[in-house]
Amino acid sequence: MTTFQSRRLAHVVGLGLIGSSVALALGRTGWTVTGDDLSESARRGALESGVISGVGLSEADLVVVATPAGAVVGVVNEILGVLGAGAIVTDVAGVKGSIVQGVNDSRFLAGHPMAGSELRGLAGARAELFEGCTWVLTPTTLTSPETYSALHGVLREIGANVVAVNAEDHDRLVAVASHVPHLLAGSLMNEASRVAEQDAVLLQLAAGGFRDMTRVAAGDPMIWPDILFENRLAISQTLEALESRLASLRQALGSEDRQSITDGLQSAARARRQLPGRALSSENMGYLRVMVSDRPGELASVTMAASELLVNIYDIEIAHGIEGVAGTLLLAIDAEQVDLFADALDTRGFQVVRER
Amino acid sequence: MTTFQSRRLAHVVGLGLIGSSVALALGRTGWTVTGDDLSESARRGALESGVISGVGLSEADLVVVATPAGAVVGVVNEILGVLGAGAIVTDVAGVKGSIVQGVNDSRFLAGHPMAGSELRGLAGARAELFEGCTWVLTPTTLTSPETYSALHGVLREIGANVVAVNAEDHDRLVAVASHVPHLLAGSLMNEASRVAEQDAVLLQLAAGGFRDMTRVAAGDPMIWPDILFENRLAISQTLEALESRLASLRQALGSEDRQSITDGLQSAARARRQLPGRALSSENMGYLRVMVSDRPGELASVTMAASELLVNIYDIEIAHGIEGVAGTLLLAIDAEQVDLFADALDTRGFQVVRER
Repeated sequence: MTTFQSRRLAHVVGLGLIGSSVALALGRTGWTVTGDDLSESARRGALESGVISGVGLSEADLVVVATPAGAVVGVVNEILGVLGAGAIVTDVAGVKGSIVQGVNDSRFLAGHPMAGSELRGLAGARAELFEGCTWVLTPTTLTSPETYSALHGVLREIGANVVAVNAEDHDRLVAVASHVPHLLAGSLMNEASRVAEQDAVLLQLAAGGFRDMTRVAAGDPMIWPDILFENRLAISQTLEALESRLASLRQALGSEDRQSITDGLQSAARARRQLPGRALSSENMGYLRVMVSDRPGELASVTMAASELLVNIYDIEIAHGIEGVAGTLLLAIDAEQVDLFADALDTRGFQVVRER
Repeated sequence: MTTFQSRRLAHVVGLGLIGSSVALALGRTGWTVTGDDLSESARRGALESGVISGVGLSEADLVVVATPAGAVVGVVNEILGVLGAGAIVTDVAGVKGSIVQGVNDSRFLAGHPMAGSELRGLAGARAELFEGCTWVLTPTTLTSPETYSALHGVLREIGANVVAVNAEDHDRLVAVASHVPHLLAGSLMNEASRVAEQDAVLLQLAAGGFRDMTRVAAGDPMIWPDILFENRLAISQTLEALESRLASLRQALGSEDRQSITDGLQSAARARRQLPGRALSSENMGYLRVMVSDRPGELASVTMAASELLVNIYDIEIAHGIEGVAGTLLLAIDAEQVDLFADALDTRGFQVVRER
């Protein structure tokens, strides 16, 4: 793969948020990047802003296909037909099983960067989007070791943490971690709506936990059907598993099986507490709960203290718990800074609870 | 009820977080408050800190029973036996059906303040806990109008928004709004754990949405079995409704019924966006999304700007969206301050998206 390493010519097909960010990230690490998009305006925007330097597929060593999932197989096979033996092709779609089944070529290696943005398209594109992000690759028995190591190297260069998983496992994992949670949130919200239609006071009783659980349901519904249908097998299995868990809970409630309810809640609590905070492992994270009132300046006072002490707040949320006016600020910071920061907040008169 | 209004002698049974906060709130509005607790140390703590001024049930006009739900009926009936005709008794338990069925007295009116804290017992007690909180009262045909109007007046004085709901409706509403969401979060977390045992990489793929949906599952599991069993009928019905929604989704995926999937997601998105932000109506709330990077000071810079402009941040969260290092800050503020604050952040170099 000496050729591959030395020429550094890349081509990106599909210049949305992920495609444009890949182009920027590659450009920053010394690649010459061309690109293309079905949309004339997306192509022109990327050219004019310097995200890409041309529009020809040309002599690319690396082609990244960042089209919607449904179009990937067709585009990849077309591109493989015109590329040389030393080139590699990858994609970024959120579902992998159907894609690896549709492409039979040692130069192809499917991938899925776990990154995104609230913004869409070029507006949200950033060269740093993949720094610290988990980038899944799904090699098959066909994938050549050269293809794997070359793509792995490129992704490391743009800051991603690469993990290899087989395509079926990937689909099963994202079903549990992303697709089914979205469907659950939607189902809970729809059920609550139905009840609220009969009794509007429900909305006043919907506390923090309910809002947390339904938050993702507020997202753009239009991007979901494609993803859900592409991954329908794994999703159906996970839905079935959950239906059966809910039925068991119902049965335990009916038969007063206190032990099984308690066991289930305890194992869930244990597992949730061990869940790593984003890219960070939970071992390195410490948590603080700070009582605050809803007044301008309370939050500033806490975050200023963090800033002064060079404490980085990785995660923050206001847990209103229930519908009161005051709340608790949940902060995730480096574990070794917990005492320092808690003492500082204490001095400033805040009520603080440390958690580790 | 002239007697009731003028003497202002209250007694609180059960001096945990809610009981102690009720005592403090009543004390602040001119009541003389006595109290009691099965725990010798809770009673002594409340006395020594001045939360209560004595321990006798004495000549109370108002008795608030703040024991665990399972003990309420027994305690209330015992107290009603020794109180005069002009007194009133209420409770604060999270489940109401079994309680109103167990007490047959015109002087009793059951209630449920939707307030709480991360802290427990006296340590978390605050006189302002109920300011702006929704306090549900569940009158029955037995409840006398005098009892209702007197208790309503007292609760308004300590800052609560009183709503009246019948006890069965209350239980059905909290099943959907609180109890079942908790069980769903636990079930999803347990299912993910099972998958993660086979494939630990799952935890790296668990994005912001998954963490949001399982957050409540991390809470203290020991307080839940009591609540769940007290409200098992309403919970079972809601679980069944959700099982059937999940089964319908499975069927729609299997039969490629795109329309029904899209309709479901769209109605959920619409409903979720209309969900009021806490006690505030969504009409008065505006939302900003601010792109931030994970560096000490980023958050301080945003919250400082808010503080300087006297903008109160009602709700804040870091949406990492996916596992990237940077994220989006979601801020809920007064709708009329959105432009002011967005412009200020813009000037400071932040990328801001306004939502209304």
